[in-house]
Amino acid sequence: MTGDLLIRSVRPWPNLPGAPLVDVLCEGGHVAAFAPDLDPPPAVPVVDGRGGVLLPAFTDAHAHLDSTRLGLPFRPHSAGAGLADLIENDRRNWRSAEASVAQRATYTLARTIAGGATHVRSHAQVDVDSGLEKLEGVLAAREEHRGRAHVEVVAFPQCGILREKGTAELLEAALRAGADLVGGLDPAGYDRDPVGHLDVVFGLAEKHQRGVDVHLHDGGTLGAFQVELICERVRALGMQGQATVSHAFALSTVDGERQRELVELLAEHDIAVTTVAPGVREPLPLRELRRAGVRVGLGQDGIRDYWSPYGNGDMLDRAWQLAYRNGFRRDDLVEMCVDIATRGGAAVMGRTLGLTEGSPADLVVVPGDTVTAAVMDRAPRTLVVHAGRVVAAEGEIV
Amino acid sequence: MTGDLLIRSVRPWPNLPGAPLVDVLCEGGHVAAFAPDLDPPPAVPVVDGRGGVLLPAFTDAHAHLDSTRLGLPFRPHSAGAGLADLIENDRRNWRSAEASVAQRATYTLARTIAGGATHVRSHAQVDVDSGLEKLEGVLAAREEHRGRAHVEVVAFPQCGILREKGTAELLEAALRAGADLVGGLDPAGYDRDPVGHLDVVFGLAEKHQRGVDVHLHDGGTLGAFQVELICERVRALGMQGQATVSHAFALSTVDGERQRELVELLAEHDIAVTTVAPGVREPLPLRELRRAGVRVGLGQDGIRDYWSPYGNGDMLDRAWQLAYRNGFRRDDLVEMCVDIATRGGAAVMGRTLGLTEGSPADLVVVPGDTVTAAVMDRAPRTLVVHAGRVVAAEGEIV
Ligand SMILES: [Zn+2]
Ligand SMILES: [Zn+2]
Repeated sequence: MTGDLLIRSVRPWPNLPGAPLVDVLCEGGHVAAFAPDLDPPPAVPVVDGRGGVLLPAFTDAHAHLDSTRLGLPFRPHSAGAGLADLIENDRRNWRSAEASVAQRATYTLARTIAGGATHVRSHAQVDVDSGLEKLEGVLAAREEHRGRAHVEVVAFPQCGILREKGTAELLEAALRAGADLVGGLDPAGYDRDPVGHLDVVFGLAEKHQRGVDVHLHDGGTLGAFQVELICERVRALGMQGQATVSHAFALSTVDGERQRELVELLAEHDIAVTTVAPGVREPLPLRELRRAGVRVGLGQDGIRDYWSPYGNGDMLDRAWQLAYRNGFRRDDLVEMCVDIATRGGAAVMGRTLGLTEGSPADLVVVPGDTVTAAVMDRAPRTLVVHAGRVVAAEGEIV
Repeated sequence: MTGDLLIRSVRPWPNLPGAPLVDVLCEGGHVAAFAPDLDPPPAVPVVDGRGGVLLPAFTDAHAHLDSTRLGLPFRPHSAGAGLADLIENDRRNWRSAEASVAQRATYTLARTIAGGATHVRSHAQVDVDSGLEKLEGVLAAREEHRGRAHVEVVAFPQCGILREKGTAELLEAALRAGADLVGGLDPAGYDRDPVGHLDVVFGLAEKHQRGVDVHLHDGGTLGAFQVELICERVRALGMQGQATVSHAFALSTVDGERQRELVELLAEHDIAVTTVAPGVREPLPLRELRRAGVRVGLGQDGIRDYWSPYGNGDMLDRAWQLAYRNGFRRDDLVEMCVDIATRGGAAVMGRTLGLTEGSPADLVVVPGDTVTAAVMDRAPRTLVVHAGRVVAAEGEIV
């Protein structure tokens, strides 16, 4: 499934003013050479980057492909404000969507790839109402786009684990059915038993040798406590590098000293963090996390679903959102957001992306004369390359 | 300059599910009729709305057309963090832009109109460095687009009034040269003399019978104090309905009781407020302001300039930003943001827009099946109509 490819006329990152456009040769799914005016080896396809900015492909490190309604008739938002209301609203409505989970996930994954993301970690709700139906839809979408993107699926207990009998067994069945990671959700704030919840999550992870990705909206000291519980379990099981805390609002809702301690704890246990750049919740301490060596990824979260009307599959739009919400004006900080949206998220998934010789040829070309300009303009992607093959061009998958 | 026009097949706001598409007849620059399958009177041009959402045209109630670099090669952000640094950075650089102020303002105003805004209030910096040069550039852009948009220009003392001798005289010269309103900037926090600053601003307003629009970034009790000073002057001069406070960060940085007092004060003096939906500063209490009857408008602020890389001329994008930053998911709240971005800003400029018979035919058609869907998708505008004439179509001015 890997390919050879010559991409003409792109500006690799960093874009130095006045630097010449270069060509990029990909061989066997990896970047092989950067230079102006490369000669393509025989039979290698040649595509034109038209002077756009070359970036590593985007990674959506936190999506919910199972709930999306992108491309379907718009439904007014019908949920109340709290998490329980949102969960119930989804339960009332998802079965009556005009298309199956597989169809909807497949469409939105196509939009996500067309936007330049070739790595996606999607949660798939597993609960006593839907059983494995949503998971199977996401797995079908992954299969449909197998040559276009690397997709990880998290068995996600959206309705808690302990609140609804049978959920733990369904999570295990999900792992056997093809889910890659074990998910969790607010062990204290929603499931009401942090130790009980995390024991199930990490118990399954240990038994099946899988990673974990826990949604943690709980903030302040309650959230901080659960970060500690997660660290303790990672240490006990030797799961360094295998765990992710999503949202991690605790980090931005404790005082500075406590924040430093939590960042250190995450770094020490090599636990990754993902954010979706929320509009209202305080932004994560991105620079502090990165300086400490914590892997930080960016995701879309839900994409126009029964939870929220936001989200469009476009990770460059989301990177803009991260920069805007943090008030970043300096190019280096806007570029940090792009790094989080590309390499950062890939690192959360245990993948190394980059723009050096030998890097995987997962690349995106975006119109623009600098990275920051490309972020501000958010023009349709000129090219999206996965494993050395063009998988999307001019904003549409191929 | 007003026209007759028949727009076929649009969804007027509110869009009731299942409601039929309607045609809109504009006569003499006003909306004359809404109905399915209207027969066009003889010689009236007919355009196709293609089932998009019909909205009142957008209003950019707070732009800086004089500083924009949209469309020019991207320049990395070169300023420090504070207001003084930003001002100095602009002074060091603006003369070396690749195009004149008039050319740059004209281009960005074209993009703004193409995005659906037919009412724009632009500030134009007046100071001892640039004299009236920036103002003249904005006036030239207004002239160039005279048939496409109604543009107000504020003589804006970006560098303070009292800090640099000669500025007050320049402001008066700006009014004689064509500026419509007198601007101000952080009378206390930046110009260091709230009474002295506001006496100049309101003195010129009284002498020349103009409105005022004061940038007020000062927050907390210092900002609140200046809101009071502005109210006192509005009352003394009978300038109810003629004054705007831009940004008004004071409103979101005082306690709830004080906030209620300030909102009441603004309402009592019919002082308008504009926001640019900043990413970091706390959002204004939009619902409280509107419930009290305060006119609230939305603006782009600077548009890719020496101050900030953000901004693209698209007021629908900005309306999305306002909704996102406020965490609005419900359709009525997203629609409130659209109302602020359309009718709200027009009211700040003393204009009444709407979608009823007799409203000015300043309209925009946006692809989408509901208003919220249109905000989320932010697709290029199908049609933009000013005074009954099509001024932009498919995202480009005509
Ligand atoms: Zn999530
Ligand atoms: Zn301003």
